[in-house]
Amino acid sequence: MPASLLDRSLENRLQHIIDHKTKPLGALGQIETLAVHIGLIQQTETPTLTNPHILVFAGDHGIAADGVSAYPAEVTYQMVLNFMNGGAAINVFTRQNGLRLVVCDVGVRGTFDSNTAEFVKFKVQPGTQNMRHQPAMSSDDTEAAMDAGRLLVDGVHHRGCNVVGFGEMGIGNTSSASLLMHRLLNVPVGQCVGRGTGLTDEQLTHKLAILTEVSDRYADLTDPMALLSAMGGFEIAAIVGGMLRAAENGMVILVDGFISTASLLVAQALDPAVIDYCVFTHRSDETGHRLMLERLNASPLLNLGLRLGEGTGCALAYPLVQASVAMLNEMASFDSAGVSNK
Amino acid sequence: MPASLLDRSLENRLQHIIDHKTKPLGALGQIETLAVHIGLIQQTETPTLTNPHILVFAGDHGIAADGVSAYPAEVTYQMVLNFMNGGAAINVFTRQNGLRLVVCDVGVRGTFDSNTAEFVKFKVQPGTQNMRHQPAMSSDDTEAAMDAGRLLVDGVHHRGCNVVGFGEMGIGNTSSASLLMHRLLNVPVGQCVGRGTGLTDEQLTHKLAILTEVSDRYADLTDPMALLSAMGGFEIAAIVGGMLRAAENGMVILVDGFISTASLLVAQALDPAVIDYCVFTHRSDETGHRLMLERLNASPLLNLGLRLGEGTGCALAYPLVQASVAMLNEMASFDSAGVSNK
Repeated sequence: MPASLLDRSLENRLQHIIDHKTKPLGALGQIETLAVHIGLIQQTETPTLTNPHILVFAGDHGIAADGVSAYPAEVTYQMVLNFMNGGAAINVFTRQNGLRLVVCDVGVRGTFDSNTAEFVKFKVQPGTQNMRHQPAMSSDDTEAAMDAGRLLVDGVHHRGCNVVGFGEMGIGNTSSASLLMHRLLNVPVGQCVGRGTGLTDEQLTHKLAILTEVSDRYADLTDPMALLSAMGGFEIAAIVGGMLRAAENGMVILVDGFISTASLLVAQALDPAVIDYCVFTHRSDETGHRLMLERLNASPLLNLGLRLGEGTGCALAYPLVQASVAMLNEMASFDSAGVSNK
Repeated sequence: MPASLLDRSLENRLQHIIDHKTKPLGALGQIETLAVHIGLIQQTETPTLTNPHILVFAGDHGIAADGVSAYPAEVTYQMVLNFMNGGAAINVFTRQNGLRLVVCDVGVRGTFDSNTAEFVKFKVQPGTQNMRHQPAMSSDDTEAAMDAGRLLVDGVHHRGCNVVGFGEMGIGNTSSASLLMHRLLNVPVGQCVGRGTGLTDEQLTHKLAILTEVSDRYADLTDPMALLSAMGGFEIAAIVGGMLRAAENGMVILVDGFISTASLLVAQALDPAVIDYCVFTHRSDETGHRLMLERLNASPLLNLGLRLGEGTGCALAYPLVQASVAMLNEMASFDSAGVSNK
């Protein structure tokens, strides 16, 4: 069941309400645009944000063996442990801004003992195949990872969540994101490849050569599901499924950086309506993200030079989303406050 | 007593700590820069933000009679009542983000009955003189308004506040801010004048003509205190005094938009060290603010097209300031989390 395109019949009414708040016309800039958007997603003049969540999906990448990342592959596993122990940036920022964090192993190489409400085991495979030699995932496994995303979104929606951000952890996953961008937006691969977690010039040249080879290998693929299987990753597939389901559920989707936005490109190819539910939280410092956002006609809330992933941009921007809703619900109008309008 | 320039000897140590957090080098962009800055202001590796306040100073402007604003002058008074009743944007955003709001009448035309802990009466005069015909304020009154700012800052500092934002309300005050920018930065007045709360093209041309006339009238003045008296306003003088005292107290100063930054230009001319304590919270949509920030070598946290004043940019950006401190204090290091570094 695809998501519904937003019914925009409330837009004028929402804008009218905002235009009569005690401030000059348009003086709250993007906070106003965002308030209208959330009113339209929720189809109400009095939107609310309830039980906000960040879902972080983790998975390993076979291509990491080819030296496309500045960090060794075991960091994916180690960082998931760090998430469980509350020590990562996304733990800090979700705690601070009142979002709940759920981490899901959907494809990490390595076994986790722990099982908590904040950690979900849904391992499809212990890492993808090396896409340089064969498709990263089988189509069945791709579907399974997408289902993991759907299930988690339905789970949090069932407990009252109506706003969800998607984060990821997966050493090597900027390679998948770059390739998906390259193929889905029809942009030369060189414009899609960046330094990820911090490649040197030489390493960047190597990464570009590898990704060009991978793209050539799958030159005949155009179907988004086939591209996702061939060049994606388990965490990316889970985010694709999660975004699709969040839109079907009418939830506000917080889009993070390069990997999350690449996942959105796949989701959008499968269901164009999904983008109607998306709030773009930041412009990443990773090469390619700016162009992705331009193609999506997106105006992100933050531009702080972030390039960490994990959903950190979503968590950092969330107070601005709350502010837009509070503005709509709580600010006085010229009439109610007895303030002279122009 | 001027403020101390920041002692930067801790800078390398702070950067070292941040570089060993579980994230790629520099991956949190401006959040990292900000954490170092606050560590230096507080001279500690473990900074804390306590009892954050926004101080909003309100005052009327004689020049408003000449049609330099889109709104009538009585809106200053009406908006102060709106602040007291909790209906303005700054009320909404301070409530949401856990800052305390104190409003101070330092020069409003009109009398307020109310007297609460959140509303301070310190009226120097019921509005400035029309600077087109005589200096806006006497030097004694300018000093008195600056003292109001100092007193409020000392008051909140005494009750444990170590981070303070400055907001303002005053119909006509973009005219004062433009003139102060023009003279203190030596920028042609045409580059300093904008639409304020929403002038038409014709009104903007009129405003520019008026401000050119005012600038010519005081062409011989160069002393910052004399410029402040001639072309400023009570709320601007109060912010100048407040910023100077906040820096002397070693507090983090949150700088809002066009008016606040113009006030900082005056404060900086009086004490160059004050800028060391400033966090620039946003780039306003008001013409001139971009250039001000460039001259100050400032990288603001937000760029959302805000042009409201009241300290709203400070309140909206405050969670990012909190995030930077939380990152420094709470994120695990590679060692402590057992994560492999490059």
